[in-house]
Amino acid sequence: MQNKIKIGLFGFGIVGQGLYNVLKNSSGFKAEIKKIVVKNRDKKRNIDQELFSYDKFDILNDEDINTIVELIDDAKEAFEITSAALKKGKAVVTANKKMIATHLEELYALQKKHGGHLLYEASVCGSIPILRNLEEYFDNEPIKSVKGIFNGTTNYILTKVIDESLSYDQALKDAQKLGFAESDPKNDVEGFDTTFKSCIVAAHAFGVFIKPEQIIRQGIQNLQSSELNFIKQNNYSIKLQAFLSLSDSNELYITVLPKLLLKNDALSTINNEVNSVIIDGAFSGIQQFTGKGAGGNPTGAAVLSDLSALNSNYKYQFHKVEQNSNIKFSNAASIKIYLRFNQDMGDSKNLNWLNIDSYHADKNTNYTIGEMRLTDIAVILRDFPKSSFISLLPDSVFIPQENEKTRHSSELQTEAIYL
Amino acid sequence: MQNKIKIGLFGFGIVGQGLYNVLKNSSGFKAEIKKIVVKNRDKKRNIDQELFSYDKFDILNDEDINTIVELIDDAKEAFEITSAALKKGKAVVTANKKMIATHLEELYALQKKHGGHLLYEASVCGSIPILRNLEEYFDNEPIKSVKGIFNGTTNYILTKVIDESLSYDQALKDAQKLGFAESDPKNDVEGFDTTFKSCIVAAHAFGVFIKPEQIIRQGIQNLQSSELNFIKQNNYSIKLQAFLSLSDSNELYITVLPKLLLKNDALSTINNEVNSVIIDGAFSGIQQFTGKGAGGNPTGAAVLSDLSALNSNYKYQFHKVEQNSNIKFSNAASIKIYLRFNQDMGDSKNLNWLNIDSYHADKNTNYTIGEMRLTDIAVILRDFPKSSFISLLPDSVFIPQENEKTRHSSELQTEAIYL
Repeated sequence: MQNKIKIGLFGFGIVGQGLYNVLKNSSGFKAEIKKIVVKNRDKKRNIDQELFSYDKFDILNDEDINTIVELIDDAKEAFEITSAALKKGKAVVTANKKMIATHLEELYALQKKHGGHLLYEASVCGSIPILRNLEEYFDNEPIKSVKGIFNGTTNYILTKVIDESLSYDQALKDAQKLGFAESDPKNDVEGFDTTFKSCIVAAHAFGVFIKPEQIIRQGIQNLQSSELNFIKQNNYSIKLQAFLSLSDSNELYITVLPKLLLKNDALSTINNEVNSVIIDGAFSGIQQFTGKGAGGNPTGAAVLSDLSALNSNYKYQFHKVEQNSNIKFSNAASIKIYLRFNQDMGDSKNLNWLNIDSYHADKNTNYTIGEMRLTDIAVILRDFPKSSFISLLPDSVFIPQENEKTRHSSELQTEAIYL
Repeated sequence: MQNKIKIGLFGFGIVGQGLYNVLKNSSGFKAEIKKIVVKNRDKKRNIDQELFSYDKFDILNDEDINTIVELIDDAKEAFEITSAALKKGKAVVTANKKMIATHLEELYALQKKHGGHLLYEASVCGSIPILRNLEEYFDNEPIKSVKGIFNGTTNYILTKVIDESLSYDQALKDAQKLGFAESDPKNDVEGFDTTFKSCIVAAHAFGVFIKPEQIIRQGIQNLQSSELNFIKQNNYSIKLQAFLSLSDSNELYITVLPKLLLKNDALSTINNEVNSVIIDGAFSGIQQFTGKGAGGNPTGAAVLSDLSALNSNYKYQFHKVEQNSNIKFSNAASIKIYLRFNQDMGDSKNLNWLNIDSYHADKNTNYTIGEMRLTDIAVILRDFPKSSFISLLPDSVFIPQENEKTRHSSELQTEAIYL
């Protein structure tokens, strides 16, 4: 793309407006917004009305527009726009994580077939340039694991609940007031958003395409006093953590679960709407990237950076996919978890544990800490979605199922403690 | 550079050997080391002797070699090799921070004139991809400040001295044993290394070329019990900090000085040989990049990443230099410092302070905390290089000199406390 960037913009919310202002006031950067397609005809907008349209084809069929910036909520509509634009040879910049996560393999193929450019840095962890670094800096370095706090809303809520003893409901309301959380917070608090981002990271870090529904996921919405007490007693903190980890035999395990952390953990001090990603590279070792994960300006900065990259003809090469390294997504592992049931749900210790470290019961709840297969965790999350609470422990790591047998005969002598 | 990368390697130390092994064992990455020029004829090396030469022209005059990887200590020799190679149209990857910092403007001009490629990610903060992010992610975003821990050796020493109460000498010995510190530690502990890196960052973050000797610099070599007690009393930590900050009137101030930190500061938990860089961008806000700053593999990872970038014809565009944003390096500011003198050097409170916050004296030492002009700090560092100790405080910020007059008539009413 050597010509001047002429933009067709879909959506004019906080990010879109920020982008409009930046581009209008930027001297160094040559890009022009030619048309803005929005849904709502009644909203008052204080810029030139001529710019607006309500018909997506006013952008898609305009040959003069070479770049689409897609900032709408609707993932289905966003995919139609994006794939239509790629087929027409236009470049697309988007922040729509659900759309990308759900259709990544298709979009990758479309880009390849039509030679287009699809960039979406803003879709993962707001302002943190995580995709660009995975693609360009770690392109020839095997990655052992990626973990982190990928969602600003849940991190804001957990910070307020743990550090400031706010109620969950009050913390959520505050997050909504500050514009971090949507009016329907399900996407954030139930972990969908983190799961979408994990799918995108899986492709760029490990070369693996997976669907969001393949990932074992629980959000923070079931957090109760039982675990709040447990956290306080042990001086832990808690974060919703994306955890992607490669086994020695090239199996990629992924969970999106709350994680209990020691206070000196590198993720423990990441608070409020801040996101943080920790990459463990085979040569470079542990790398941590921290920055704002929510808000108009941080997201706008990532969009701007993608636009700027288009200027030098940049595209994701999907290096890890192309290298075809035989990495396979798998749930054939076990991991240590804290699992809380309310008493009316039965006894958590009677579930399918590989081993039990400890058990606690009082008149309202009971919880068990022990090791369980990922497939069994998935069953519990399916059967008890409303009030069970599962969290990883500070020392939780994935244990490949193939190691189970040898290990069980020797190492696992931990006594269960029944209180 | 679309042809296969054929490398002439200068130097075969830890990083060079690591690179050799990685390239030999990497399947995905197409690059071959054709010749290695070393100095020492007597050292035993357990790879094909045919690869080695002792004459730099065996690489420079070999038309088949299109890429130089320069990993020698000698900055003068490194500059001769690098400029000769660039003039011949070869690409150069180097980790030599002193060479780059000292000659950056010249090298920039050489790259421009001859159309070559000069990459040096490994020269700043080891494995952290800081230059690439400044060039490619922040290319169109104004940066307000960059600060951080740029040197692994001093950070290792300070960690051991503060957290484990080791003596400075013992900590330095340990660092040397672990291979972090050179046998002559001057370059690291006196802050030269951090200063070189600050020069490089100044060019890529702010578009300003400055010489290392223009930067106000003190290392950690004069650290004494007086400040160790002060740190303990206040529950601070201490780090050698590079601090680059832009004023509202586009003046760029830079110091390389020890900095006292509150325990909840984002740099306070960065320990041992780890480096960390905090960038404050106008749109994206605070971004922190953390990773290993020393060691063969982390540095090798950065070199490898540069080589890989050459494959897609990448070069630093020096966006901030090209944007010509009128930023000027300046020392016309003041800042709050802790300044300790030994008693035989006189009384620290009699120096040229703009104002004094507090003063302390005992039979061996005396120290003053207050605000001083950068130019006056430079004079003290020149006149008392051996035993004075200067450190920034947790709340130290640059105060532009132009604000001095208005400010002094009103705000600065702080009483000096004479103990």
